[in-house]
Amino acid sequence: MIKLGIIGIGNMGTIHSQLIMDGKTPEIGLTAVADRDVKRREWAASNLTGVDIYTDGEELINSGTCDSVLIAVPHYQHPELTIKALNKGQHVLCEKPSGVFTRQVREMNEAAEKTDLTFALMFNQRTDCIYRKMKEIISSGELGEIKRVSWLITDWYRSQYYYDSGNWRATWNGEGGGVLLNQAPHNLDLLQWICGMPARVHAFCHEGKWHDIEVEDDVTAYFEYPNGATGVFITTTADTPGDNRFSITLDKGTLICEKGKLILHKLALSEREFCVTSMDPWAQPDYETTTIETDGLNPQHEGVLNAFASNILHGTPLVAEGKEGINSLTLSNAMYLSSWLNKTIEIPFDEDLYSELLSKKREKAGG
Amino acid sequence: MIKLGIIGIGNMGTIHSQLIMDGKTPEIGLTAVADRDVKRREWAASNLTGVDIYTDGEELINSGTCDSVLIAVPHYQHPELTIKALNKGQHVLCEKPSGVFTRQVREMNEAAEKTDLTFALMFNQRTDCIYRKMKEIISSGELGEIKRVSWLITDWYRSQYYYDSGNWRATWNGEGGGVLLNQAPHNLDLLQWICGMPARVHAFCHEGKWHDIEVEDDVTAYFEYPNGATGVFITTTADTPGDNRFSITLDKGTLICEKGKLILHKLALSEREFCVTSMDPWAQPDYETTTIETDGLNPQHEGVLNAFASNILHGTPLVAEGKEGINSLTLSNAMYLSSWLNKTIEIPFDEDLYSELLSKKREKAGG
Repeated sequence: MIKLGIIGIGNMGTIHSQLIMDGKTPEIGLTAVADRDVKRREWAASNLTGVDIYTDGEELINSGTCDSVLIAVPHYQHPELTIKALNKGQHVLCEKPSGVFTRQVREMNEAAEKTDLTFALMFNQRTDCIYRKMKEIISSGELGEIKRVSWLITDWYRSQYYYDSGNWRATWNGEGGGVLLNQAPHNLDLLQWICGMPARVHAFCHEGKWHDIEVEDDVTAYFEYPNGATGVFITTTADTPGDNRFSITLDKGTLICEKGKLILHKLALSEREFCVTSMDPWAQPDYETTTIETDGLNPQHEGVLNAFASNILHGTPLVAEGKEGINSLTLSNAMYLSSWLNKTIEIPFDEDLYSELLSKKREKAGG
Repeated sequence: MIKLGIIGIGNMGTIHSQLIMDGKTPEIGLTAVADRDVKRREWAASNLTGVDIYTDGEELINSGTCDSVLIAVPHYQHPELTIKALNKGQHVLCEKPSGVFTRQVREMNEAAEKTDLTFALMFNQRTDCIYRKMKEIISSGELGEIKRVSWLITDWYRSQYYYDSGNWRATWNGEGGGVLLNQAPHNLDLLQWICGMPARVHAFCHEGKWHDIEVEDDVTAYFEYPNGATGVFITTTADTPGDNRFSITLDKGTLICEKGKLILHKLALSEREFCVTSMDPWAQPDYETTTIETDGLNPQHEGVLNAFASNILHGTPLVAEGKEGINSLTLSNAMYLSSWLNKTIEIPFDEDLYSELLSKKREKAGG
């Protein structure tokens, strides 16, 4: 059994602590929590029996009460605390996003590479049976190369009241971004996990468009992949009921994930081959449409926590390797950069320029 | 009954002539046809009994055999022949697109405005009961303002054989464009008819990406509308079976047109109002989902032809006014311009610059 400390028991840290206290994670013992907010510590004292309580994350790391930590503090502090815990020989499970700017996350990844410790990210949506099946089908190569990706993911609705519920919310200084950094990191991670990383990005991020906030709440992004495939990613916190339709067109078929179902239109042969061999100007390849069966499992946070403990204890695979967190952050950083400069951004982009422009946003917001 | 001449009896002109000969258009008498291709004239001589046959469109216009013409020749000649017919006092029904570049179409519209003659365009998809219903619902204002538009229209599949079937096909000199000018004008017209014109466009057009052709066969375009709404329009001739999903998110609901159905998610109240009045950070407005009933009618080309004759004879409305053809062409011209210059194009754009860049494309292609 691992001895876990949770740093930050706000919305997410509380959920995680309760999963552990409820016995959902048999290989995890919750030994300590830390939070700067006295009310959260009072809550912990009343609800988390037998758990040490600290004010500061570093204090918890140095306390010797834990062999591993779960970091659920504001985004900017993720890399710093991760590095501190790793340097103290503790395994780390970090909440998404891995940080706010890629340069910072690169340093975190370098620190992790120097150790044999487990470093994982809370990309709980990777545990969803449908996304796992999509990853499996695409990775198998049975449908050939990707030609087009489209993800309309506009079901992250938030009212103004949500944004007003914390003065750090939706600010450049508090969160370092909007829907791309708070809500959509899951989707950006799934996108890169299933489809790989694009070579270039062009995005249109609208700041404070639908809410009285500093950061973006509406984004349309266009991608080009190394093999020539293209993609769009559209997200917002202002559409309701909103859409969640993720479609991937490949050489030998199309996968569509919508309304909790995974549909496959499987072609009888390669489109690329059909295109050049057909002697009929109007013909199309035959295809068969099926609803793909999955294992139906969707363990979410519980699944990530258990995989983390099991990786430490038995060497089994993680849900998401910590070092992979830089990919979704690269996508969102590139989208901001593209939108701020109104130009197409090649990946890898100029990380110093990004940090500089983000600092300007923060100064302006703070002033 | 009107006396109609058809100029150009290729693919489309033939279909139209047969509808008339088959008695589907009771107020239209086919009196003449013209085609430069001897084989098409031979076909007409064998199949179109009692119809005068000409080699040249202008000859037909000057023959005195018609009071109206249907123009179904290559795109570049649409404005020129339309102007000639109007100047001879003949009513005109022109195939889509209205021309290849907007400057040319502007002259055509000016010529039409000087007369009381009927000038119509063959936007037959406007007769589809679902698109008519979408137009009706959006125009009524019952759902409030548009916030987001997304049309993934990738079911225009064409094999290489199709493109090889005519040496004018998919060339800058023959057609003046690819999927945006040959296949998608219907969708671009419906988009502007239902949602209005955007204020700016940014597009990514890929030329000869999936086929051995000069022009674009893959396009992703992003729009911003005057009220701040955004949109994407994605089309290609290389996806199969392809998608056709047109969704419009408004303040009080979302309309989704897909698989021959029109779905409405209707909110119990305005999202804009809910956003600022809700006192729950996670709540969303209640909504009801229904499949919208339509009149089920979809008369397509026959409907456009009959409306044209009836407008001339009885003053009833057309399916598509000729002057509206410039809107879809403005969209496609702006998309090319954006893609060629890799920048966002404000509408109205520099029409002289567009003509100049198109001429360069034509020269390069011809060389």
